[in-house]
Amino acid sequence: MNELRKDPILGNWVIISPERGKRPQAYAQLQRVIKKKETVCPLCSGNESLTPPEIYALRPKRSKPDTKGWGVRVVPNRFPALGRKKELVRKRLGMFDVMSGFGAHEVIIETPEHDKNLKDQSVKELSKVLKTFQYRIEELYKDKHLHYCLVFKNEGWEAGASLEHPHSQLIATPVIPKRIKEELVGSRNYFKGRKRCVYCDILSQERKNGERIVYENKEYLAFCPFASRFPFEIWLLPKKHNADFCSRTTKESISLLADALRTTIQKLAQALDNPQYNYVIHTAPNPISRHGYGKNIDRNFHWHIEIIPRLTRVAGFEWGADFYINPMAPEEAARSLREKEIR
Amino acid sequence: MNELRKDPILGNWVIISPERGKRPQAYAQLQRVIKKKETVCPLCSGNESLTPPEIYALRPKRSKPDTKGWGVRVVPNRFPALGRKKELVRKRLGMFDVMSGFGAHEVIIETPEHDKNLKDQSVKELSKVLKTFQYRIEELYKDKHLHYCLVFKNEGWEAGASLEHPHSQLIATPVIPKRIKEELVGSRNYFKGRKRCVYCDILSQERKNGERIVYENKEYLAFCPFASRFPFEIWLLPKKHNADFCSRTTKESISLLADALRTTIQKLAQALDNPQYNYVIHTAPNPISRHGYGKNIDRNFHWHIEIIPRLTRVAGFEWGADFYINPMAPEEAARSLREKEIR
Repeated sequence: MNELRKDPILGNWVIISPERGKRPQAYAQLQRVIKKKETVCPLCSGNESLTPPEIYALRPKRSKPDTKGWGVRVVPNRFPALGRKKELVRKRLGMFDVMSGFGAHEVIIETPEHDKNLKDQSVKELSKVLKTFQYRIEELYKDKHLHYCLVFKNEGWEAGASLEHPHSQLIATPVIPKRIKEELVGSRNYFKGRKRCVYCDILSQERKNGERIVYENKEYLAFCPFASRFPFEIWLLPKKHNADFCSRTTKESISLLADALRTTIQKLAQALDNPQYNYVIHTAPNPISRHGYGKNIDRNFHWHIEIIPRLTRVAGFEWGADFYINPMAPEEAARSLREKEIR
Repeated sequence: MNELRKDPILGNWVIISPERGKRPQAYAQLQRVIKKKETVCPLCSGNESLTPPEIYALRPKRSKPDTKGWGVRVVPNRFPALGRKKELVRKRLGMFDVMSGFGAHEVIIETPEHDKNLKDQSVKELSKVLKTFQYRIEELYKDKHLHYCLVFKNEGWEAGASLEHPHSQLIATPVIPKRIKEELVGSRNYFKGRKRCVYCDILSQERKNGERIVYENKEYLAFCPFASRFPFEIWLLPKKHNADFCSRTTKESISLLADALRTTIQKLAQALDNPQYNYVIHTAPNPISRHGYGKNIDRNFHWHIEIIPRLTRVAGFEWGADFYINPMAPEEAARSLREKEIR
């Protein structure tokens, strides 16, 4: 029943994923729902039978799937937006384009412990989560119909989470999401003639200028982007050019990424009293389905993580026109985050 | 202090509008603020002195500005995102592009009565509001630096409103907002070779098909778009091709538009128990600054209103990738709205 539909004017795809048996009237109540702490958390250690069978887990060698003892665990989303049981079918409905709801929707359970949020995870623990992301993306990219894997985290009810237990999600799609496509086109256009990566140029200017920097270690830089759409928006980039989130798998590099991500989130937590937030990994599309973006994608794109705390309401101006009013200068946001000392 | 900044990768502009004297820490509280009913509403009849001096008002011929007796009143926003006091200055900061915060930000007070929401306004009253929009856009478009006027309404706290009194807003900008630009490009591309407007083709298919129609009168059609991003998203279009919201000024046409808008909002109110919502008018840019979109803009673009009820939370997937999961098939949303009888 789920399907992907293409907007005939803008060209982007939307997932239509009707919740089974949900009547239109049910939406009237949605805005008033308050999250109730589940009495039994399906993501906690010991409750493995409450999730669909696991896809992957970091667990001791001889322990069985769907039993206790794991460190990170990946399961299918119970209400997947997309799935791979059906075939990928493309069709036309009059002037409209449709695809079957082909793809994958996975939940990465970051820790067996219910209360161990990202900011409380050790560098070693968070490294395991990041390596799991890489592993799942690489596995899914073996399917040439999956053009993109979007890894993201919703922390807090307002940010879209419906379970408290620390988890991230991965959605693999047969199309490249609109914003990623725009980044690919934008960075390709910048590269033309210049033969330089736009993100590398930004990194160089931000490091020289310094006023928007939030945190920096040997390999990664976190900063508030010049044209931030939201207060305290942060981008986290590898300082050395790299288009592909999965390509740097040395233990040191993963640890440094975990350090940068953890420190950035801790700074936000300190400055803003544990705000709800989203982060999204922007990486290059599936190497075997990069048609349309040329051979240079490895040279002109630069993977990064975008972190958006949910602090302000988004109004008609933003929705209707994709035009943002940010009430907080990124320089000031960065200064207040830079000042926070993290142990 | 306000300025427009261009994203160096995506090319869109963001308004940086720091609220004076607001410290970074203040954002930590924002998410918990609950709207308090103002004891004195600055938009009510009799309180004209509480707003900046009026720009325009529909009032009896000999009544003085900023006094009682008006029907619709336009005032500058007390905290404008953009203003015309400063000159329009364009400059470069290293690799970044900046513009001074040049533009206009106006509040259209729809009625002197505090509790008369759009759905309770008569066709005659709403017609006056719509004519005021047209008048203000035409006035502002006399300034060739103002490339676009975005008219929108935020109804309810979650939808971004900070005052209860029925009002809409207008933001005039020296750039064309991202989503509008994409529509102009998309409809231009569709027109190429075909010599047909993409919106006219959609209208024709929707009217033939019927299942996504919400309401129709002699001149206007309201329907849930095929690739709706949100549950109960509705587009309202003139059935006869027309690129410019300001160009149909016959009394009958305005009344029919008021009827279509009012009926649509009433249907939403009935079906979803008075949901909060946004609507945004998408019209052609300033005729004297349409560079870059060719001479055919009048033939390939089609003005419309996009109505978005605020029913679901928006999560990381949507923010991070501009890729939407809609849990409600537009056909089902349209059916449930079509069924509602409006007196």
